[in-house]
Amino acid sequence: MVVIGIDPGTAITGYGFVQENQDGSLTAVDYGAILTPADLSMPERLLELYRRLSELLLLHRPTQGAVEKLFFHRNVTTAISVGQARGVALLALAAQGIEIGEYTPLQVKQAAVGYGGAEKHQVQQMVQVILGLPDIPRPDDVADALAVAICHIHSIRFKNLMVE
Amino acid sequence: MVVIGIDPGTAITGYGFVQENQDGSLTAVDYGAILTPADLSMPERLLELYRRLSELLLLHRPTQGAVEKLFFHRNVTTAISVGQARGVALLALAAQGIEIGEYTPLQVKQAAVGYGGAEKHQVQQMVQVILGLPDIPRPDDVADALAVAICHIHSIRFKNLMVE
Repeated sequence: MVVIGIDPGTAITGYGFVQENQDGSLTAVDYGAILTPADLSMPERLLELYRRLSELLLLHRPTQGAVEKLFFHRNVTTAISVGQARGVALLALAAQGIEIGEYTPLQVKQAAVGYGGAEKHQVQQMVQVILGLPDIPRPDDVADALAVAICHIHSIRFKNLMVE
Repeated sequence: MVVIGIDPGTAITGYGFVQENQDGSLTAVDYGAILTPADLSMPERLLELYRRLSELLLLHRPTQGAVEKLFFHRNVTTAISVGQARGVALLALAAQGIEIGEYTPLQVKQAAVGYGGAEKHQVQQMVQVILGLPDIPRPDDVADALAVAICHIHSIRFKNLMVE
């Protein structure tokens, strides 16, 4: 199973494709950030984001996706802007029939570190360790995207354990 | 010239196609609301909105689009939700190469009623009069969509007058 985690934004969208191996270990298949040029209009930036994300989905064919739930933001203008990018990301996944899980920041921390009060750098270090990466992925958006993908896989495992 | 005005939302998106005639009069070519079923997931609702809006654009082939700028909302959760629908609407227009104008509520009122402090029902009555409609379009989302389309046409005319 390959899961894409996404941290959406208009200027920068982090993504991470995480594969669950036969032995239960997790591998980062691909990760990075989609940057959209600031000199484009908002609709053009959203179109650029949609196209590049759709290309990545066609390349890696994930069956599941995961994004963070958003509850608050510094200001409402930011919330609208993040919401626009988030809508386009959810659409790209839905258009390819990919199921999507949404997780609160607390759930992501719990899944990565086993502790909902974990610090950001602790989450990032756990992402590095769990995926066996040489460094902490940069920028933060990429590490966050990988963390929510890991959270989704852990969540599915936990549900399967409960059902058995 | 045909202009589409859009009032985006996840549950309901108002739309209105307004045609500028040779004599300068305006006609409502088509207007209505796209409702998405509440029992669908958010990504499925966004996909439904995208598909139905794209179909309407292919049918009426507008060259220009207009949406209201959003500055504040009752709460940030609403802002994210509206932002998601707005992002999908902007994407649908950009994907078909339609230029988009964004207007503040003040600009929309100014364009429809000639007075930025106008009441909502005044704007709606002017939409009815300007477009020669038998009734005020319902729900509010539809009237708002037609109002922003009218605002866009007035704005283009005004710019052309300034250039001459």
